[in-house]
Amino acid sequence: MKIDLTSIKSPRDIKNLDLSQLTMLSEQLRAELMKKLSAHGGHVGPNLGVVEATVALHYVFDAPTDRIVFDVSHQTYVHKMLTGRISAFISPEHYNDVTGYTCPRESGYDLFEVGHTSTSIALAAGLAKSRNLEGGKENVVAFIGDASLGGGEALEGLDFAPTLGSNFIVILNDNQMSIAENHGALYDHLRELRESNGTAHNNIFRALGYRYIYVSDGNDLHSLIEAFRAARNADHAVLIHINTLKGAGLPAAEADKETFHYAGPFDLKTGAPLQDDLTEDYTDIFARHMLTRMGEDRRIVALTAGTPGAIGFTPDRRKAAGKQFVDVGICEQAGVAVAAGLAKGGSRPVFGVMATFIQRSYDQLSQDVAINGLPAVFVDFAGGVWGIPDMTHLGFFDIPMISNIPEFVFLAPANAEEYLAMLDWAIDQTDHPVLVRTPGGPVVHTDRPVNTDIFRYDIVSEGEDVAIIGAGDFFGIAAEAAEILRKKGKKPMLINPRNLSQLDTVCLDSLKKLRKVVTLEDGITDGGFGQKIAAYLGDSDVKVITLGLKKEFLDRYNATEVLRDNSLTPGQVANLLSE
Amino acid sequence: MKIDLTSIKSPRDIKNLDLSQLTMLSEQLRAELMKKLSAHGGHVGPNLGVVEATVALHYVFDAPTDRIVFDVSHQTYVHKMLTGRISAFISPEHYNDVTGYTCPRESGYDLFEVGHTSTSIALAAGLAKSRNLEGGKENVVAFIGDASLGGGEALEGLDFAPTLGSNFIVILNDNQMSIAENHGALYDHLRELRESNGTAHNNIFRALGYRYIYVSDGNDLHSLIEAFRAARNADHAVLIHINTLKGAGLPAAEADKETFHYAGPFDLKTGAPLQDDLTEDYTDIFARHMLTRMGEDRRIVALTAGTPGAIGFTPDRRKAAGKQFVDVGICEQAGVAVAAGLAKGGSRPVFGVMATFIQRSYDQLSQDVAINGLPAVFVDFAGGVWGIPDMTHLGFFDIPMISNIPEFVFLAPANAEEYLAMLDWAIDQTDHPVLVRTPGGPVVHTDRPVNTDIFRYDIVSEGEDVAIIGAGDFFGIAAEAAEILRKKGKKPMLINPRNLSQLDTVCLDSLKKLRKVVTLEDGITDGGFGQKIAAYLGDSDVKVITLGLKKEFLDRYNATEVLRDNSLTPGQVANLLSE
Repeated sequence: MKIDLTSIKSPRDIKNLDLSQLTMLSEQLRAELMKKLSAHGGHVGPNLGVVEATVALHYVFDAPTDRIVFDVSHQTYVHKMLTGRISAFISPEHYNDVTGYTCPRESGYDLFEVGHTSTSIALAAGLAKSRNLEGGKENVVAFIGDASLGGGEALEGLDFAPTLGSNFIVILNDNQMSIAENHGALYDHLRELRESNGTAHNNIFRALGYRYIYVSDGNDLHSLIEAFRAARNADHAVLIHINTLKGAGLPAAEADKETFHYAGPFDLKTGAPLQDDLTEDYTDIFARHMLTRMGEDRRIVALTAGTPGAIGFTPDRRKAAGKQFVDVGICEQAGVAVAAGLAKGGSRPVFGVMATFIQRSYDQLSQDVAINGLPAVFVDFAGGVWGIPDMTHLGFFDIPMISNIPEFVFLAPANAEEYLAMLDWAIDQTDHPVLVRTPGGPVVHTDRPVNTDIFRYDIVSEGEDVAIIGAGDFFGIAAEAAEILRKKGKKPMLINPRNLSQLDTVCLDSLKKLRKVVTLEDGITDGGFGQKIAAYLGDSDVKVITLGLKKEFLDRYNATEVLRDNSLTPGQVANLLSE
Repeated sequence: MKIDLTSIKSPRDIKNLDLSQLTMLSEQLRAELMKKLSAHGGHVGPNLGVVEATVALHYVFDAPTDRIVFDVSHQTYVHKMLTGRISAFISPEHYNDVTGYTCPRESGYDLFEVGHTSTSIALAAGLAKSRNLEGGKENVVAFIGDASLGGGEALEGLDFAPTLGSNFIVILNDNQMSIAENHGALYDHLRELRESNGTAHNNIFRALGYRYIYVSDGNDLHSLIEAFRAARNADHAVLIHINTLKGAGLPAAEADKETFHYAGPFDLKTGAPLQDDLTEDYTDIFARHMLTRMGEDRRIVALTAGTPGAIGFTPDRRKAAGKQFVDVGICEQAGVAVAAGLAKGGSRPVFGVMATFIQRSYDQLSQDVAINGLPAVFVDFAGGVWGIPDMTHLGFFDIPMISNIPEFVFLAPANAEEYLAMLDWAIDQTDHPVLVRTPGGPVVHTDRPVNTDIFRYDIVSEGEDVAIIGAGDFFGIAAEAAEILRKKGKKPMLINPRNLSQLDTVCLDSLKKLRKVVTLEDGITDGGFGQKIAAYLGDSDVKVITLGLKKEFLDRYNATEVLRDNSLTPGQVANLLSE
């Protein structure tokens, strides 16, 4: 008999079900999930893979008293379904009521806002330590998978947690995949453990002091419940290794795990995408150009830290790149250090990475690369307001984070031609570490010859009285504002700075005679490009207005609104200069 | 017969020695090293522990063709002695000719400028990948110890390197110590390996695909040479675990490994320090205050990432703090995440950390702490110009790195009384993540009541025409400059902002009527506090001059000279305002 899903208000409502009812519940949850995912898109494979594990988790443990921390937390849809948010999964009009990640603003069952990988074990270890100091007895559980375990923060946590000498449970959801295929010796070891049904010699978890439990069918409720019960209330560290099927229940997702890690709306029967996005994008432009360059020069190496798709390296392109393509796994720190080593060895590394994830490697960018003056190239994606609008994936911070590291050259191309020219410049020079920021928004082309003298600003039009300095993908806003002013009979200077880390003092000195300068940048103004200009011109008579995003964590925002709220529409910019 | 040490110009000069000569060489090197260390100070224990290992390394491998990457690289004194720099160790007038770390500017035998831990394996992996692409056959060796292996970047590298499927050699120098005692399950495992003479089950290195070789006496040349030879030219990943004695040959250092990790000049016979530093310091003030607070409130937890001494937590104090003191090992990422978990659990974490090492945790500060709005407290040390003058340990970057993270409150107290008041404020509030920057330079006291309304600037003296805003330990320079101006009959405003992350717009608006404002901050100006002020006032008539350090990597600098070069003497500041 079917379960009335709307009756599930909290995990308490599944505690009295028997195994066949739990099995029925899992089937129903999966069916609803597939319906929503096919209509709405989302993290398909990760969630379908853990339907049974999540049901078992809430059946055996008593959240929120027991503390469950989900790593990366894109696999928590079923968790949300079981913790008072079922309507967001079964009622299309409520589909957008929930975020795609755990969210304490939504529910007390969600402990942390999490979107980056590899944080759960150390976060949970902090909760466990706090519990121990208070004399509490609740279980603390870290639920980790999708290759998050290989990240440095996860490994540090894995090392630390057993030293607490108290209850601590890690559930390792081994679906044999990262976003794409797994990389790293650890995953060879997990395979060895799977193939030996958990009995392989040299068990890394046992080496670190964990009691190790293996569940060969991580989609089998009975085995999961048994394993979780065996760990519950343990007075020591336990790791439960569950072997799950990513995308379980959706043949297309089972067959093509990479495509269905995260997908837009699709046909539930065939798996075919409902919207075929044929518009040109920078990711594609990047990868095609890289392949061409790599074909011509065997020294060029493309690197990713577990997100090949996000930088345009589809399986075909990875194959074409061969040994010149390196995926270090979700290990941004090692990725940057490997790039430093490659540069030292005479190769020409180009590390493509999401703007939000490069945050993991601040110290490596500074120490391993910049202090050593190594000409490694970094290309970041989804930076700025047109990046990913989720609070945990914002790309607003790369300008302050990287442009203030000595030696680094931070380049912000305004269009596709500049982008490729700067990429070429960065690869071909050997004097500087370089970050090239991939523009956001629709691809823009220019007929204007690209000026690659990247230590000088590009003065696109000379003028008088006022100047607009539009950086990167905000150059378009600057150009439109200039056009508005021109129509009003003014002659604004229009400048494309390109370089956001070194000031062009010759150009800036020439602006001192103007009345007003406005800077625009696609990132928070705090610590950014415009503030450098304002400070440089601070002792002169020219007024400087620095425009950009406010220093804040936005969530699921609308880019158009954010631009307007920050006086960043062409009209608003023109108005500021008309005053 | 003694070896003529001055004849050793390169490792080639030891290749033809026999074992007894190598033994003699090691003894002589150790004796010279002890002489220099006792007169000059330095990393005592780490270097004395690896005399034989370094001799064996250069005896078996052929640097610089073979590529040796030293982790953290404070243990490379003997390496320097054997690679053309012997005079810096045997001639007192040349003692300062070399840095305390590997330094490519000094020698082609040094591959990277390194001072932070845990980088060697991933850096070496990059070199190995580059070699593989070029078809080279040289050995690539990562030499890692002093608890660097537990850091996330090292673990990521350890995971990645075997996937290269080629020659890769890790020498794990296990001296059973971090700077202080080791923490982490990994070190329990290393003890298990030592106690079983390398035969323990569940060997973590074998689990990751390394061939594992154990050397029970890591100070025995014969065993070391045999092990290194066994690994040389391997076509796969090998890890050689050598059990060494930290401080070997100096009884005081063998007995008190923590004190002699790094020491100033000492009596070679007794180990007693030659300079007894009895002046008050902030580290001591911090730790004493923390112990008092922790005694009163069991929820307060002090955390360190492997540097308890650097935050004043001597062994006695650690004992007194008991369970309220947590050392996560050299794992700043996990440290920050554990702090986040503790705060979530209701504890009051205070993570003490060097300004240079907090760089490892940018993403955790942003994601695990700030996005979650958790009131974890961070206290950084050796920030600013009076911090550590080594290129790899500069503390110039914490203001731009942390003050630009949304939600974070970055506090820069100017004196001891403010420091403790801000620490109390940070611990007692539950609304914000807070970074308190420990002042540099000699301890300063004030009679002035401390104003803990930390979202308002403290206007220390009202004035007219000009204002000086002196942040943190540069407030003293600002005050002296104001005094010079007062003697000239001027009435400068003097402001102590304390908060470097949120602007006091009420105060700043009141400055718009002035002629000129100067900001001073003890860090690079790029991305810092003054540039925020300059931008905020950019559209007004007041001129703003932002003073601070230039964005550059200095090495072994003189703080007085750096201040002068950046117009930061009181006289220079006063002059800027007299114009």
